[in-house]
Amino acid sequence: MEYYVDLNSDIGESFGSYKMGMDEEVIKYVTSINCACGYHAGDPLIMDKTVEMAHEKGVRVGAHPGYPDLLGFGRRKIAISAEEARCYMLYQVGAISAFLQAHGEKLQHMKLHGAFYNTACNDEKLANAILDAVEEYDKNLILMVLSGSLIAREGQKRGLRVCQEVFADRGYNEDGTLVNRKLPGAFVKDPKEAIPRVIKMIKENKVKTADGKEIEIVADSICVHGDNPKAIEFVKSIRQGLLDEGIKVQAVDTFLK
Amino acid sequence: MEYYVDLNSDIGESFGSYKMGMDEEVIKYVTSINCACGYHAGDPLIMDKTVEMAHEKGVRVGAHPGYPDLLGFGRRKIAISAEEARCYMLYQVGAISAFLQAHGEKLQHMKLHGAFYNTACNDEKLANAILDAVEEYDKNLILMVLSGSLIAREGQKRGLRVCQEVFADRGYNEDGTLVNRKLPGAFVKDPKEAIPRVIKMIKENKVKTADGKEIEIVADSICVHGDNPKAIEFVKSIRQGLLDEGIKVQAVDTFLK
Amino acid sequence: MEYYVDLNSDIGESFGSYKMGMDEEVIKYVTSINCACGYHAGDPLIMDKTVEMAHEKGVRVGAHPGYPDLLGFGRRKIAISAEEARCYMLYQVGAISAFLQAHGEKLQHMKLHGAFYNTACNDEKLANAILDAVEEYDKNLILMVLSGSLIAREGQKRGLRVCQEVFADRGYNEDGTLVNRKLPGAFVKDPKEAIPRVIKMIKENKVKTADGKEIEIVADSICVHGDNPKAIEFVKSIRQGLLDEGIKVQAVDTFLK
Amino acid sequence: MEYYVDLNSDIGESFGSYKMGMDEEVIKYVTSINCACGYHAGDPLIMDKTVEMAHEKGVRVGAHPGYPDLLGFGRRKIAISAEEARCYMLYQVGAISAFLQAHGEKLQHMKLHGAFYNTACNDEKLANAILDAVEEYDKNLILMVLSGSLIAREGQKRGLRVCQEVFADRGYNEDGTLVNRKLPGAFVKDPKEAIPRVIKMIKENKVKTADGKEIEIVADSICVHGDNPKAIEFVKSIRQGLLDEGIKVQAVDTFLK
Repeated sequence: MEYYVDLNSDIGESFGSYKMGMDEEVIKYVTSINCACGYHAGDPLIMDKTVEMAHEKGVRVGAHPGYPDLLGFGRRKIAISAEEARCYMLYQVGAISAFLQAHGEKLQHMKLHGAFYNTACNDEKLANAILDAVEEYDKNLILMVLSGSLIAREGQKRGLRVCQEVFADRGYNEDGTLVNRKLPGAFVKDPKEAIPRVIKMIKENKVKTADGKEIEIVADSICVHGDNPKAIEFVKSIRQGLLDEGIKVQAVDTFLK
Repeated sequence: MEYYVDLNSDIGESFGSYKMGMDEEVIKYVTSINCACGYHAGDPLIMDKTVEMAHEKGVRVGAHPGYPDLLGFGRRKIAISAEEARCYMLYQVGAISAFLQAHGEKLQHMKLHGAFYNTACNDEKLANAILDAVEEYDKNLILMVLSGSLIAREGQKRGLRVCQEVFADRGYNEDGTLVNRKLPGAFVKDPKEAIPRVIKMIKENKVKTADGKEIEIVADSICVHGDNPKAIEFVKSIRQGLLDEGIKVQAVDTFLK
Repeated sequence: MEYYVDLNSDIGESFGSYKMGMDEEVIKYVTSINCACGYHAGDPLIMDKTVEMAHEKGVRVGAHPGYPDLLGFGRRKIAISAEEARCYMLYQVGAISAFLQAHGEKLQHMKLHGAFYNTACNDEKLANAILDAVEEYDKNLILMVLSGSLIAREGQKRGLRVCQEVFADRGYNEDGTLVNRKLPGAFVKDPKEAIPRVIKMIKENKVKTADGKEIEIVADSICVHGDNPKAIEFVKSIRQGLLDEGIKVQAVDTFLK
Repeated sequence: MEYYVDLNSDIGESFGSYKMGMDEEVIKYVTSINCACGYHAGDPLIMDKTVEMAHEKGVRVGAHPGYPDLLGFGRRKIAISAEEARCYMLYQVGAISAFLQAHGEKLQHMKLHGAFYNTACNDEKLANAILDAVEEYDKNLILMVLSGSLIAREGQKRGLRVCQEVFADRGYNEDGTLVNRKLPGAFVKDPKEAIPRVIKMIKENKVKTADGKEIEIVADSICVHGDNPKAIEFVKSIRQGLLDEGIKVQAVDTFLK
């Protein structure tokens, strides 16, 4: 049996004169990127440069829409309406698509950012507004979401292409959510622990929670980070560990049903 | 011989809780609208509503990109680079396109706003950056520009689809530019004067300047305004005057070579 | 016994080319204004013009800080930290103070806007962050807050100058909060009903709730609106009704202990 | 004869999650800082932290107002009106002043940023709008400007306190302007060359231009940078060089007439 997995990373989060992330490094090791669209981070020049870089490296691009909150980097929940969520989605997805079109590429997926991502994981109204936007824009656009979340299930009900993502470096609760960053068990920092962990997620659809129980999980894509040199090393190790195990590391579009 | 002309108006310039323009009125009389894209005016909710309204009325939609300056309503020149101009164009054109795609429509044209429009009329570097963006995004996208301007000529040289626009309510200088709003002869407010004037532009490709000379002009589209009840009356009169003369008032995409 | 009351209204909420509110009208009838500071509405030109107008009319000016959300007009709750709340307060209070200083005036009070106002009414952490900012900036700055709210009590505990405000045109719940705008009893639109109601609040410190019970209330200031001609008429009636009753209508600074 | 000089640096230019500059390092070696006010850079949290840090180190704080252009970091000229310039000044000066007041400090000076700074050096209308704002806000506020510039002369004519600044690391043209960054002679990177150069500016009021001529210059303050470790080393060297020469390095407020 063949196993496939996608590696995704948030990039293009610089803004104007402000630089964030080691985009040029992390892009070498992933198969898909989530590109900020100017709401929580990113700007037109950076979007263009990011898409160009992805085009050259053969990496697929997804939209990474966030709340309209550059000051808070999209990490603060804003009480927006369903209609606002749907329209903010369309706006940002359209904006990034123009750069892809200009570079002869096509948008692969959509993955929400920060507080927008977290809220859509369990807020039914918001999740459905997001799904409406995806359906109206392009029924074939892949929806990249937290494995097992409400928005994942709602997307599947609608027959959308749902890519369930997992985190290589984070601990899980019994309900499939991530352990709060302030609690013990929140992080898995050692590649020696993280690699067998993601392999198990991919091959057996299982992960051990912070409390030691085993829960179901689907790992179509693994989210990795490129914030600093250590993070880059972690990504390289994960990638190599997957390849050594014979797992195909490819853009999700190539293998997702 | 058949004569055709498009009537265009800037709409979708409200923002959040702020309302601007009588969009619901003016859209009844025009054939194309230029929809603000969130930089100088407009927001995702308004873009969605505007595109929906155009869809229902059978009016074609163009992007109306401006400088990133909501505070100045895009009317203040900003010294942006060619690369910034190209990327700001792509971003805004993409954003509005998403709403059109969601409503089963396609972008008809692109018309710059305010100081962006004025600067591109005679700044070769900026004009070419704009044209680069149009070519990269979609070679068939119509470029709506001031009749006889530098960007019109540059667009034609590249073989792009150039829609030259005229102003029914403004006076012209000998070089084809508009008379400064503070000078005498800047405005043509009486429909009785404006109607024969636009008919002459359409049928004879001529207009009399504020100084009384006759210059060449091409009128593929006539720009009209929907700011207030009086402006709406002016638009209705112009439209009726054209129809009475047997001129076909249609979206530019239907007749532009 | 002498009775005093302040009449306050939110003004200066235009932005750039966008006009909102009948500021020039409503300012004739109030004694204090709450001036937007550029976060949810307002801009430097409008702040200057508003302060100048207040200076000419002898009306006192307060800061009206909101969430940093022009797109949502400050009406959407944003999950900001206590530290952010404190700093957003200082920033906005300082900005409006500069215009007062330039016009030879001094800031009278501070009243939060929209979702910032509502959240501070019952969120202890946020309320105390706001109070910290007031204390650090100027212990004598009057705090204008919802009568009976948590922030009112916390402010009094600290010995700050607390001006409790009531709404002439809104219904009250038994706990002193306003009836939700979507429920019956939310509004009191007829001046014939509203006038005796506010007189009772001022003289007896009582108001009848939407359910017909009587609750305690303190009316140092009455909040009125200047959105449209009808609102202006309402303000004029309220003011005249108070004067006819012999109640002194004065800026809160002149009578608050 | 005693000689005095102030060392100033632009700091507080981070924004939200974006970090810029080595503020904690450079503040150790300067006597005055110019703090961004949220228009071209900076935000309320950063302003608060910057002012607190200056308070602890005994460094004086000035406002550093820029154009409202975070995307362009205030480096792009925007065609604003005199009235807009005056009001943008007041807004930003007021905002930073609130943080100073909260920390028991007082604003020492005002120094424009980027394109705002450059434009005010030779645009009479803009320069006078800035001076109007300073006069209206506080006649004793020190104006920190390019030595010999139009705004320096205009400020002196009005009897304002003008601090003329020089650049330790930049070449000068014959008219006192800085050599364009793209031309030879734009930079003086070696402290061994820079130190005698600034000493000559302070003691003899002279500097040698890139072309080898000697021009007049007044050095009340020297502008230094804290962008990177090398820049910090440069600042340390300059400071030590001045001290070794017996020049007093103090905040400008202590010695400016």
